[in-house]
Amino acid sequence: MKISARNVLKGKVVKVTKGAVNSEIVLELQGGAQIVSVITNTSVESLGLKAGVDAYAVVKASNVMVAVD
Amino acid sequence: MKISARNVLKGKVVKVTKGAVNSEIVLELQGGAQIVSVITNTSVESLGLKAGVDAYAVVKASNVMVAVD
Amino acid sequence: MKISARNVLKGKVVKVTKGAVNSEIVLELQGGAQIVSVITNTSVESLGLKAGVDAYAVVKASNVMVAVD
Amino acid sequence: MKISARNVLKGKVVKVTKGAVNSEIVLELQGGAQIVSVITNTSVESLGLKAGVDAYAVVKASNVMVAVD
Amino acid sequence: MKISARNVLKGKVVKVTKGAVNSEIVLELQGGAQIVSVITNTSVESLGLKAGVDAYAVVKASNVMVAVD
Amino acid sequence: MKISARNVLKGKVVKVTKGAVNSEIVLELQGGAQIVSVITNTSVESLGLKAGVDAYAVVKASNVMVAVD
Repeated sequence: MKISARNVLKGKVVKVTKGAVNSEIVLELQGGAQIVSVITNTSVESLGLKAGVDAYAVVKASNVMVAVD
Repeated sequence: MKISARNVLKGKVVKVTKGAVNSEIVLELQGGAQIVSVITNTSVESLGLKAGVDAYAVVKASNVMVAVD
Repeated sequence: MKISARNVLKGKVVKVTKGAVNSEIVLELQGGAQIVSVITNTSVESLGLKAGVDAYAVVKASNVMVAVD
Repeated sequence: MKISARNVLKGKVVKVTKGAVNSEIVLELQGGAQIVSVITNTSVESLGLKAGVDAYAVVKASNVMVAVD
Repeated sequence: MKISARNVLKGKVVKVTKGAVNSEIVLELQGGAQIVSVITNTSVESLGLKAGVDAYAVVKASNVMVAVD
Repeated sequence: MKISARNVLKGKVVKVTKGAVNSEIVLELQGGAQIVSVITNTSVESLGLKAGVDAYAVVKASNVMVAVD
């Protein structure tokens, strides 16, 4: 499946914190930066996400803000 | 100002494409990856965004999805 | 690629309206309902979206609201 | 109240899973497809959402992505 | 229609800027603050939005960030 | 840091409800209106959010819908 989301960043899961409905996923990108995602527990399970798994962070362009110092 | 958004990635603007209301901004992150953002023209102007300017991509964790191959 | 977004609805593109940065895509789902999406022109081109093309509408669960009469 | 969100899909609540802050709501649309939503518990209560209740899934067009096989 | 979005702020439209696909709407809230929204042109027309019209800004809680100085 | 998000509304935290992953924050704006936000617990801690703290609600324009009666 090819998706319209313009930002697909390759990385590896480094931490999964589960709540009752949502989980927080920390990914480490190839350049070393970390990305934090909040998705449902059901998705964590269906994708088999846990520390060490290769995964992508996916973000729609309209959800990216820009900031300057 | 310190913001709750968990993802603040340092980079540099490499391209700005203006429409009537929104602009598309391409940022190159320090690791070389590119991030695409769509924001209003008014923000592009008030932040002085143009190619070469240092800037951050900012994304709320709930707007980050995860994918696996 | 398998994505964490919980809502992936099968349909067919029925209309594409292009702007300078974004396009509006109308999809007709298998049950006959229509879904409207706004994505960047670059994605419209890279996915080859035009009337008649089979496609999915994809929505992260945290972006779905609920309403009652 | 009439809202700007372009996607308002009629269905019925089939499942509510409550967490400490958010709940996951599963709706079944008229065509049989399921839609998953994550909203706050307060909204679940103020709207009286529980299995069997008629409800709409509401999504802003800019939050809909498109994918192709 | 009663919606799950937790933030429904009463105001008045003060400006509409149309693009090819999206419009930018500026609302003035009752306390004097301004809120900017970007929605599709089709919604602007179907809701009859123009300067002087009473309207609400509606925001899902998961789309609200918090910042401190 | 100056951010592209067009909506930055000054207020004060009046309530924080923590879950396992996310917290719900209620802010009271200067005009008396309340804004509800859902952010991660980590952000609540790193920003030191608790009742009485001055804070801003920040919303990207593309996440603001408009409604009329």
